[in-house]
Amino acid sequence: MTVSYEAPLAMMRLALEQAARLSSLDALAAAAEALTDLAPAILESAARLAGEQLSRLNRIGDAAGAQLVGATVTTAPGFKEAYRRFCADGWPALAAPPTAGGQGLPMLIAAATTEMWGGANLAFAMCPEAASAAIEALLTHAEAPLRETYVPPLASGAWTASMCLTEPQAGSDLSTLRTSAEPDGESWRLSGRKIFISWGDHDLTDNIVHLVLARAAGAPPGVKGLSLFLVPKRLPGPDAPLNDIRAIALEHKMGIRGSPTCAMALGEHGGARGWLVGALHGGLECMFTMMNHMRLGVGLHSVGLAERARQLALAYAQERLQGRNAAGAQRPIIEHADVRRMLLTMSVLTHASRCLAYSAAATLDVARAAPSEVERARATRRLALLTPLVKAWCSDTATEVASLGVQVHGGMGYMDDCEISQIYRDSRIGSIYEGTNYIQAQDLLVRKVLRVEFDTFVAWLDEMAEAARSLPEERALEGLRSGLASECAELARTAAQLTRVDPEALGGAACAFLSWLGIVAGAWQWAETARGARAAPLTESRAAALIGGAAFYAAHVLPRARAFAATVTGGASALAGVAPTDLA
Amino acid sequence: MTVSYEAPLAMMRLALEQAARLSSLDALAAAAEALTDLAPAILESAARLAGEQLSRLNRIGDAAGAQLVGATVTTAPGFKEAYRRFCADGWPALAAPPTAGGQGLPMLIAAATTEMWGGANLAFAMCPEAASAAIEALLTHAEAPLRETYVPPLASGAWTASMCLTEPQAGSDLSTLRTSAEPDGESWRLSGRKIFISWGDHDLTDNIVHLVLARAAGAPPGVKGLSLFLVPKRLPGPDAPLNDIRAIALEHKMGIRGSPTCAMALGEHGGARGWLVGALHGGLECMFTMMNHMRLGVGLHSVGLAERARQLALAYAQERLQGRNAAGAQRPIIEHADVRRMLLTMSVLTHASRCLAYSAAATLDVARAAPSEVERARATRRLALLTPLVKAWCSDTATEVASLGVQVHGGMGYMDDCEISQIYRDSRIGSIYEGTNYIQAQDLLVRKVLRVEFDTFVAWLDEMAEAARSLPEERALEGLRSGLASECAELARTAAQLTRVDPEALGGAACAFLSWLGIVAGAWQWAETARGARAAPLTESRAAALIGGAAFYAAHVLPRARAFAATVTGGASALAGVAPTDLA
Repeated sequence: MTVSYEAPLAMMRLALEQAARLSSLDALAAAAEALTDLAPAILESAARLAGEQLSRLNRIGDAAGAQLVGATVTTAPGFKEAYRRFCADGWPALAAPPTAGGQGLPMLIAAATTEMWGGANLAFAMCPEAASAAIEALLTHAEAPLRETYVPPLASGAWTASMCLTEPQAGSDLSTLRTSAEPDGESWRLSGRKIFISWGDHDLTDNIVHLVLARAAGAPPGVKGLSLFLVPKRLPGPDAPLNDIRAIALEHKMGIRGSPTCAMALGEHGGARGWLVGALHGGLECMFTMMNHMRLGVGLHSVGLAERARQLALAYAQERLQGRNAAGAQRPIIEHADVRRMLLTMSVLTHASRCLAYSAAATLDVARAAPSEVERARATRRLALLTPLVKAWCSDTATEVASLGVQVHGGMGYMDDCEISQIYRDSRIGSIYEGTNYIQAQDLLVRKVLRVEFDTFVAWLDEMAEAARSLPEERALEGLRSGLASECAELARTAAQLTRVDPEALGGAACAFLSWLGIVAGAWQWAETARGARAAPLTESRAAALIGGAAFYAAHVLPRARAFAATVTGGASALAGVAPTDLA
Repeated sequence: MTVSYEAPLAMMRLALEQAARLSSLDALAAAAEALTDLAPAILESAARLAGEQLSRLNRIGDAAGAQLVGATVTTAPGFKEAYRRFCADGWPALAAPPTAGGQGLPMLIAAATTEMWGGANLAFAMCPEAASAAIEALLTHAEAPLRETYVPPLASGAWTASMCLTEPQAGSDLSTLRTSAEPDGESWRLSGRKIFISWGDHDLTDNIVHLVLARAAGAPPGVKGLSLFLVPKRLPGPDAPLNDIRAIALEHKMGIRGSPTCAMALGEHGGARGWLVGALHGGLECMFTMMNHMRLGVGLHSVGLAERARQLALAYAQERLQGRNAAGAQRPIIEHADVRRMLLTMSVLTHASRCLAYSAAATLDVARAAPSEVERARATRRLALLTPLVKAWCSDTATEVASLGVQVHGGMGYMDDCEISQIYRDSRIGSIYEGTNYIQAQDLLVRKVLRVEFDTFVAWLDEMAEAARSLPEERALEGLRSGLASECAELARTAAQLTRVDPEALGGAACAFLSWLGIVAGAWQWAETARGARAAPLTESRAAALIGGAAFYAAHVLPRARAFAATVTGGASALAGVAPTDLA
């Protein structure tokens, strides 16, 4: 049975409207117009590309992988043609400003397309996502000549980009980066080794714009001595000569096999030429511009993977016959209560993570485009909380949903020729790359909630609690109302307590705190969906289904919040009480 | 970094003693003697084979897989030699009676070796596990001539066995099996197709004993028309001619790639000769004998995988440097609180699942060997609860522990050349094969707890609550004492309520119930470990570590029980309130 990815347009529209409403994006005339007038056609067009072409290549990319032959990386059959159509259709720079060659659409609309690319073919989707992050970094930090040379071909898709951060000794901890940059008149000469560079080389385009974190000669040690350099694969000029940077090896990975993950050598022949992006020793700030973009991208791709797992499991469950009903007829496994439970769990988690990720995208739009400074600042602060939460919670959730998808398939789900097994492998990277989920949790709890954004956090909890109080008075929603309200109160109380704890001691609580907040934020999104279901002109059966989904989330997912809360509040002394080496 | 599997002998000995004590196995003279006198040398010898040879082949088996060339399946390089040593060392029938060519040791000792095989090389370990189940089925159900012909070569390892149950249309639901058997004088002729047959063909031995579930001519429909047949690859006689059964395809799988998973054709040339095992139309009972054996095996292998993930993650965390301490020196990631949290979670889950699985093995020994009928019957009833719990909870736990192991490794954990990525893939099958974990949960809740073993269940809960009350009066153990006691009370109350619910409505609660009980039973095992730590002549630091482990489990794992409990008690109406097809 082969089922192509099908963009869930109805659920996406619902999530788009909800995100626009919650972030007040729908109050901005241009965004409201784009959402009403342009979004339907854009999403349908994206859905066609994702469903017809990218989805078909997903299994092919997994099986064929990318190959390093001589000095060139070749991608799996069909990837080149798909990328050509992707560019011809104008997808590379949907949300970039028209002055930079983009289409100037809200990030919220781009978010839905990003979800589709990830759901149809994550290995492929990673490539344009990096370019999109690079465009943002260049527009934000680069001088005009550099911007004018490099952004238009990135926006058209003629060139792609890579982020060159990790080195063998420096992953989560970038302070030990060794790649060096020596000044060379108007440019720099870079030397060093980078690893885990996604789409670091390939045959989709002639040129690749590498954004390389390196240490300029004479820079201070640690992260404050890092600068960001633009290092093109081919140098400017009539013959576009090759620069001194190349892929020297490809990783063999558990998943996302269609994407080339390269080890890169810079400066084997005197130094790769690079140009400074942003301030000297200001690389970390530039990197965070890219990183925050990529983190939202990971969240959106993860939503796509969860959606894809849901589709595959649902299709299988409707077709596979096992067991008999009371009349003795064979029945599809979707009629079995436990399969139904798994499918519903997949559905409600996917919707919650989609709504949360879209709300981050809409908040980003408000942060950029709201007319008042106050509104922009407020949105920026909210986004500071949402970004790590969306990256980590949506990726953890995708792994869980993919695993449920495997379980629905039974033994078939373990076979390579069953796409769900690929989704299971592909999804596992989301909790690791672009900053592990612990890095996100630490950022969320220690840096944001407890330090710079405590008031923002409390205001957000108030908003969630208000959503609980405003739920329609229906019996099915009682659990959600009381559960969401009490979790918000508990989160506020716990956060206040944690401000008095030594930050060093919080590391062991960070992941549980993030998971707790994610579960609660998912409940908040479901509460908004339930409110909307009664407010909007939906059919009665559609409204009932959405209310049912909210009730299911409250009964089957929200109770996990209690376990995370108990660990956050009571786990520290147990963590300090025994060493892992002592239990062997 | 390559780290061979190392059997955790100290923690294994602790678990063995605890299981023997809890099941009263240590009151049986022969078992007590074997545990004291023989176990240490046996375990050390097994540890050598596992650590030196099987572990080294684990990556090789994963990379090379098994190949079907012409009519023959060939295994990965080194598997033949390893199997030869496995047999020469006498491992194939440790717990089978000496009269059958076995060594007559307690299952409890065999359990520890089974864990080792699974931890060192699951793909390999599946092969002797099937033979061991077949020996048990033949000893229990086959007539003397069949037993005498087939058991000795299985016990010596000269031949192996396979279980041929699944057909394309019949997985969890065996009622629709179509493989047919026609009487043929003293034997039967079988025709049909079987799929997902682990080690259904290979080159380790000349002969393979297939135990095939089929429908005899004229049998009633459904599961009551199934019979079990012994179908050898080679027929008895001087030239040992090939029988009419062969592997026609190999599956390509997410994991356990070193094990050949075969599609088998029977009767392409007039019928595969087979001999009835047990009563005509009594196949299901015979199958359950094998299945219960295999289910305990899945649990034990899963413990081994969790242990292996723990070892790999611990070694990596001790070596990998990221971040700096207060003095500015780089520090291994094990010093980071979140890594410590992950490693400890892995440790306490592994110990809990090991103790639980060993206690099932010890209970099996008591069920077989206790002098009084009453004791044997009581142990048999307890085992009826433990078997599905051990199969499902230990396999789910192994998947979680393996995933934590990947996370500790960061990006490295996603690479094929890092063994943890294989453990992650390998571990995922445990929740699927030998009856999905939902089948286990349904068996546990609906058939056992609520129907035939309610009193056994209540007595077990009393025993667990008593363990909580008997904990040493130490502040670190307060959470475990109160948490375990209250969960036992809640489980008893909930089970009593569920007896009044329509069994059809329980399907959606079964998995959460099993997870709940698993978490609580794990706490019980940790309570026993903490009690033992204060009672036994341990060093103070060892005792403190075990108390610390118990406290960690109570603070970081046991709180999940609340979430599962909430779903069991409050999830049914939400499950009935919405269809998965309505949320798309």
